[in-house]
Amino acid sequence: MAEPILGILGGMGPEATIELFWRIVALTPARTDQEHLHVLVDNDPKIPNRTAAILGEGDDPLPRLTQAARRLEAAGAGCLLIPCNTAHHWLPALRETVRIAILDMIAETADRIAGLEPRPDTVGLLATTGTIRTGLYQDALEGHGIEVVTPDEPSQARVMRAIGQIKAKDHAVKAEILTIAGRLIEHGAAAIVPGCTELSLVLSEKDVPCPLVDPLSTLAQAGIAWAQAQEG
Amino acid sequence: MAEPILGILGGMGPEATIELFWRIVALTPARTDQEHLHVLVDNDPKIPNRTAAILGEGDDPLPRLTQAARRLEAAGAGCLLIPCNTAHHWLPALRETVRIAILDMIAETADRIAGLEPRPDTVGLLATTGTIRTGLYQDALEGHGIEVVTPDEPSQARVMRAIGQIKAKDHAVKAEILTIAGRLIEHGAAAIVPGCTELSLVLSEKDVPCPLVDPLSTLAQAGIAWAQAQEG
Repeated sequence: MAEPILGILGGMGPEATIELFWRIVALTPARTDQEHLHVLVDNDPKIPNRTAAILGEGDDPLPRLTQAARRLEAAGAGCLLIPCNTAHHWLPALRETVRIAILDMIAETADRIAGLEPRPDTVGLLATTGTIRTGLYQDALEGHGIEVVTPDEPSQARVMRAIGQIKAKDHAVKAEILTIAGRLIEHGAAAIVPGCTELSLVLSEKDVPCPLVDPLSTLAQAGIAWAQAQEG
Repeated sequence: MAEPILGILGGMGPEATIELFWRIVALTPARTDQEHLHVLVDNDPKIPNRTAAILGEGDDPLPRLTQAARRLEAAGAGCLLIPCNTAHHWLPALRETVRIAILDMIAETADRIAGLEPRPDTVGLLATTGTIRTGLYQDALEGHGIEVVTPDEPSQARVMRAIGQIKAKDHAVKAEILTIAGRLIEHGAAAIVPGCTELSLVLSEKDVPCPLVDPLSTLAQAGIAWAQAQEG
């Protein structure tokens, strides 16, 4: 059997791509180089902005996403991971362009939320306006009977600004994000999802008084599980 | 002109590979995803241990190094970076297997050392036994009239143990490495080279009372300079 190779379709942004790669390495039980997993990364930061495309204000990212997926498949990847929540809007289309599996970070996260004890009736979603508009998380959680609350319009504008600042290497926006998360908890959220990979870079479990279910860590674990299943 | 793609031939080990990727992203002047560089990473940790091969105690890593170099070339990389000092022993052989450029981390580091003011007559090298035995740094620095001092045999055995511990995610070996670096300074070293990428993970400039010239940062800068030159 061919050795499993994990493919990361990244660049959206580069820091979140590195963080996924890092979490895979950190979560792999290994004491020597050779015990680690084979990972291919295509960090293509020129993929057009996903939220802008969803809002009808920018280029379609699908052609470049397809190119990266095919590049990784041709190079030998057996399974793809996409460390960008908003890009999952194009997941059904992308799955038609390659023959290998593409993990679904949103579905994996929804499953993990549904498995929490006690199971939350409502989760608070911090994400790009693109992710919220497409209803990716709302649809995935509806199947589990879980409701999603999102920030009001002025707060959502602040979340988007904060995501831009994190992309510009400014992580000092954490306090503002936590204030908005606090309001979602006041509105009934019993768990928080940092549903944009840039937010995964600045928020951690100890920051909120309820479970924080991080899609990026969930995806890292799903990737490792895929590789371990292939290795038998 | 085709967009420049940097290829990282990594996995030796994965943490050092991530660190090079991270330094490229951190050193790139960018405020949006799209301003970052396109980077392909082949993190193949199954490449056989380089020092073991040089000491005649392990498998030849060249076949797998060649496979990774060709994979990156076929996927579109225009230039390769190898974040493993010891692997540079196979650089001349690897350069014959692909048509794209492969940067030489050792030569870049030697050039940077030769450009220091005041220029050191002697540098202290902390590296794998494989790197020291092959004379990679000694040869590169000899051309600049600079001498290399290395740890005595018991200290070198401790450096090798420390490198293994860093690969096993134990970074608590820093104090021991600094003691050995201190002895090289007593023996005349006017600059220190952490000439194993695992040591780049734990040592930084503020740790030593003389210049520390880090090959991993030097390689990141050389990679960015290559990409910027391509973009014109």
